[in-house]
Amino acid sequence: MSTTDRPAPTLSPDLIARFAAIVGERYAVTDRNDIAPYLVEERNLYQGRSQLVLRPGSTAEVAAICKLATETRTALVPQGGNTGLVGGQTPHNGEVVLSLRRLDNIRDLDLASNTMTCEAGVVLATAQQRADAADRLFPLSLGAEGSCTIGGNLSTNAGGTAALAYGVARDLALGVEVVLADGRVVNALSKLKKDNTGYDLRDLFIGAEGTLGIITAAVLKLFPKPRAVETAFIGLASPEAALKLLTLARSEAAGTLTSFELIAEICVDFCVRHGPGIRDPLTSRHPWYVLMEISSQRDDARSTIEAILERAMEDGLVDDAVIAANLDQRQAFWTLREVISPVQKAEGGSIKHDVSVPVAAVPQLITEASEAVVKLIPGARPVPFGHLGDGNIHYNVTQPAGADKDAFLTRWEEVHDTVHTIVARLGGSISAEHGIGFMKRDELPHFKDPVALNLMRTLKATFDPLNILNPGKVV
Amino acid sequence: MSTTDRPAPTLSPDLIARFAAIVGERYAVTDRNDIAPYLVEERNLYQGRSQLVLRPGSTAEVAAICKLATETRTALVPQGGNTGLVGGQTPHNGEVVLSLRRLDNIRDLDLASNTMTCEAGVVLATAQQRADAADRLFPLSLGAEGSCTIGGNLSTNAGGTAALAYGVARDLALGVEVVLADGRVVNALSKLKKDNTGYDLRDLFIGAEGTLGIITAAVLKLFPKPRAVETAFIGLASPEAALKLLTLARSEAAGTLTSFELIAEICVDFCVRHGPGIRDPLTSRHPWYVLMEISSQRDDARSTIEAILERAMEDGLVDDAVIAANLDQRQAFWTLREVISPVQKAEGGSIKHDVSVPVAAVPQLITEASEAVVKLIPGARPVPFGHLGDGNIHYNVTQPAGADKDAFLTRWEEVHDTVHTIVARLGGSISAEHGIGFMKRDELPHFKDPVALNLMRTLKATFDPLNILNPGKVV
Repeated sequence: MSTTDRPAPTLSPDLIARFAAIVGERYAVTDRNDIAPYLVEERNLYQGRSQLVLRPGSTAEVAAICKLATETRTALVPQGGNTGLVGGQTPHNGEVVLSLRRLDNIRDLDLASNTMTCEAGVVLATAQQRADAADRLFPLSLGAEGSCTIGGNLSTNAGGTAALAYGVARDLALGVEVVLADGRVVNALSKLKKDNTGYDLRDLFIGAEGTLGIITAAVLKLFPKPRAVETAFIGLASPEAALKLLTLARSEAAGTLTSFELIAEICVDFCVRHGPGIRDPLTSRHPWYVLMEISSQRDDARSTIEAILERAMEDGLVDDAVIAANLDQRQAFWTLREVISPVQKAEGGSIKHDVSVPVAAVPQLITEASEAVVKLIPGARPVPFGHLGDGNIHYNVTQPAGADKDAFLTRWEEVHDTVHTIVARLGGSISAEHGIGFMKRDELPHFKDPVALNLMRTLKATFDPLNILNPGKVV
Repeated sequence: MSTTDRPAPTLSPDLIARFAAIVGERYAVTDRNDIAPYLVEERNLYQGRSQLVLRPGSTAEVAAICKLATETRTALVPQGGNTGLVGGQTPHNGEVVLSLRRLDNIRDLDLASNTMTCEAGVVLATAQQRADAADRLFPLSLGAEGSCTIGGNLSTNAGGTAALAYGVARDLALGVEVVLADGRVVNALSKLKKDNTGYDLRDLFIGAEGTLGIITAAVLKLFPKPRAVETAFIGLASPEAALKLLTLARSEAAGTLTSFELIAEICVDFCVRHGPGIRDPLTSRHPWYVLMEISSQRDDARSTIEAILERAMEDGLVDDAVIAANLDQRQAFWTLREVISPVQKAEGGSIKHDVSVPVAAVPQLITEASEAVVKLIPGARPVPFGHLGDGNIHYNVTQPAGADKDAFLTRWEEVHDTVHTIVARLGGSISAEHGIGFMKRDELPHFKDPVALNLMRTLKATFDPLNILNPGKVV
């Protein structure tokens, strides 16, 4: 995959000095070795280039940086925890990296209003812990939570495993503070649950991947902490059976159904084979699995999950199931779920998709995509898993056993095109969680409504006419 | 209050004929008597003017109308059920009225995906009933539900009594279909729960009051229908006690707490005095009341509401409470709540506010606003009630007993300014539910963040450069 669009500009020493003066020498990184970690991401899909990483310590410093960037036509790439999966945080063309990680204050915790005001650089796990210590839940939860940041979560509208009950990042923010390309600051740090005073600017910046403005802080929603959590690992015959189980579980548990993860048998195979200490929770293998969790304020979580499983057994939807007997066992179920993606490395190359379709269409997606992929690359091994309740499947494809990894990976775009064409026909999205970034920018026009895409380009030109903010990403 | 901005243009017979040709003669209303109902709204605050009401029957007809409007620089005012409370649906300056009521198909009901695709003109109650017949819940619920429409609900981002658990209209839409000022159609009728392929256009049109585009259809979220609902009418000493009860109830009931309405004693006075067949549900009077409802999938609604009330009695938060013994009694509690606004007419003039503050600040809002209003107009009677769980209080002020109604109403702007200044200081909103429309357009600049307001104006100029769509509203 090409990682750059155009030749990198060279920043003059004078310009570097002017930027450095805003944040202080200590926080203007120019040493090649110190810059290196900001230029690569976990999957090593991209190698960025940059002469300068700025680490501002306040919204005012971010604003001053944007103002100078606009004056001098200097492009900026905002970066949080650098855990994005579509190259959105990488300076592909020598842009200045604007790292938000030092903006890590939790400005306010309001327990009566159930809100927490976090700066962009607060690590997600820190936000979760701070809420937990105040006897509240901040429900956003995803694999990278130990290093990803609130600003990145909102800029990419992160999803994760609790979205079924609590929604995606967009649903968890009441207000935002945003620095515009020209350095103006939008103060929309509202704690209000209802506010109909004009256009919804908040949601325009959330999910815009730093291309319309830079989110520097947000008011997040907190929830009561569930008192009882029950987790089941369930073996069943098909995605259709899983879908029926989902409908049944929603009907019985409604908002207390907090996770419903679909897992193909091959995922469990890979996990058991390569994951350190991972064991199959059930005594025999099943074609499909569901990890289901009920979280309740009352003492009914156990009776609810038992009632669902009993009814599902009667209806022939479920072949076997185990409810976690203790916290260790619950953690073991979740560890299995969380290592599905990393353990694929041990089986060679992997072509990954992050797609969603209407919930009802998930079985059809899996059937059609698997047929098409195996027809395209005989021996390729589909590894589908994900958030069935959200219609969001991480449809990964592992290379044929023993095949050449690099040769397999050269077919990335071909496989993507095959799967995404099926997704589009089913009314789905080619990026459910990860965003467009750099990776899917050139693919987006093939799948997006042309009028909507045109409006997006108009918005980009309106908010950032000089193309200062994360240029070459999204649109 | 002035109801017009500028002299009305006159439409030529030729132009009227061209518009009529799009919808057919039958659906182009030009008779003065037939037009009349489209020009006034329930409160009689505004008298609009228009020569032409167009009643298109399809999205394509709406698109053709917008295209012709753009070509001929003809302003349009979109209108749904004509129940808006801020004059947003009124043609103040002789605009053509674009009534969406004939777009009343329910295009799709997908029970596996839990979605319902409604056209803009579907009446809210019809959408509720259709969901109910399919054993699902469409939770949006408000006083005007018998005549307001889905398009209007989304364009104004309606709130209502179920927002505490299910969110406002914005939270209940997955996708929208929108006609732009120039007649292009944005097809974003997505059923997806997760879709991160670019900027959030959906939420830009929702709540924009028809000034950026015309919503012609939407994919709505459906929920499992609660099996048990328990409703309590509670007497207590103060808004502070109500706030503590709310925190307790959320902690015990979480997502099953579906309503939490705060009601001042004077509301119950007015209801009992003027509401036909309304009785005080409690045996003695209390300074404040709460109408609380728990809705559950399980058989625990009764035990949950009892546990909350028992604990609240022990903590001294609640002075008296009654749980509805049957559906009739539940309906009686809700009827009292719903007539609070209409019965105020019997006490003379009423100056109404639709404000929100952070939940924790509601008691302070009520105390400070009441002091200020009574100081401004001795004898004025504050009638506060509303959705405490959303921080949203309908802070109404009834005229002094026996005073001159018209003289009282001339002080509308003065009272608004007094209350809104307090709201702004508490970090609140001058329009929690009803929108800006015509009524609050000129007030908005005093309370909105100037950078945000500037962005709103930029967006309006970008999406509707000729000012065709609902001109003079919002910005």
